Amino acid sequence: MDKRDDKMAWKVLKSDYVVKEPWLTVRREHVQLPNGNEIPDYYLLDYPDWVNVIAITKDQKFILVRQYRHGLGYTSMELCAGVAEKEDPSLMVSAQRELLEETGYGNGNWSLFAELSVNPGTHTNMTYCFLATDVEKLAEQNLEATEDISVHLLTIDEVIELLRNDGIKQSVQAAPLWKYIGEKALEKLQNSSLSL
Amino acid sequence: MDKRDDKMAWKVLKSDYVVKEPWLTVRREHVQLPNGNEIPDYYLLDYPDWVNVIAITKDQKFILVRQYRHGLGYTSMELCAGVAEKEDPSLMVSAQRELLEETGYGNGNWSLFAELSVNPGTHTNMTYCFLATDVEKLAEQNLEATEDISVHLLTIDEVIELLRNDGIKQSVQAAPLWKYIGEKALEKLQNSSLSL
Repeated sequence: MDKRDDKMAWKVLKSDYVVKEPWLTVRREHVQLPNGNEIPDYYLLDYPDWVNVIAITKDQKFILVRQYRHGLGYTSMELCAGVAEKEDPSLMVSAQRELLEETGYGNGNWSLFAELSVNPGTHTNMTYCFLATDVEKLAEQNLEATEDISVHLLTIDEVIELLRNDGIKQSVQAAPLWKYIGEKALEKLQNSSLSL
Repeated sequence: MDKRDDKMAWKVLKSDYVVKEPWLTVRREHVQLPNGNEIPDYYLLDYPDWVNVIAITKDQKFILVRQYRHGLGYTSMELCAGVAEKEDPSLMVSAQRELLEETGYGNGNWSLFAELSVNPGTHTNMTYCFLATDVEKLAEQNLEATEDISVHLLTIDEVIELLRNDGIKQSVQAAPLWKYIGEKALEKLQNSSLSL
């Protein structure tokens, strides 16, 4: 987060809640820009932080889930993802909990892989993307009543094919997956003394 | 868009507008899942479609802009982006208009590069990402009163460094940039008879 540019920050003159429900919080702010101009009705969406995980098994299969998304009204392949609950002791534990619940996979080696925002203009929360390698099947799925999720194991070539065709449209998932593929390909080029 | 899975689609029992303002539209839907379970208050955000552009000059510089984003309260490097206005004859024209207004660059060779969603669970709109090569400086910036945007020309190595450090947190921009880098690196590997 680049905080050097505080001189570009907007001044909040007034802030009200327009919606404050369990699943949606909307704030309307009257703001003043550094150039003196004002926006009387700038809307902000407050959500808890979100997590997702690029989970890869010992035999190099990527664990994806397939589910319906009502905003676009379509069903597609996704990374396992969810909300960082207040009760979770850390963001990584949130991601581990989601992976276990949605897919039954766990263990392995975990690291924070990317910190992204779905929209830094409107959303005040972040999405933390984890990389988990050498995960293994520990249990069956344990879904909530509102979840209908199937689990799919894909090779890296199948993931690349999916990404090339925008088969994963959720940008906060496409970004870390492309980052994983991109960094791997760049490393391979470098090891072969090749450049882009 | 995979429409084969209509059997997974939710049935809308009731739909109301909670907010219907020029800059924000929120719908609350009472939905029924295929398994019979119901969600009485599922919130959807209706926005117009968005566009952004990976613009590259004839001497291979990436055109980025730097601006403040009030959701995260930070200033950062971004792709040139904006709203597909109703008056624009096509999405590509929207992207060309935004690039010219925000940076003064235009012309070159344009193609649709990625179709993404900031969040297919909540957002009903799409973001269309264009690739524009060989663009050239045509004019000065022509900003709106609420815009304070500086233009920056980066080499591909500077873009990669920025992406590696999550310097571009807006996932709908990080995703197409990583896609561009990733596809380029994969192509180079393939041309050298190497694989991932």
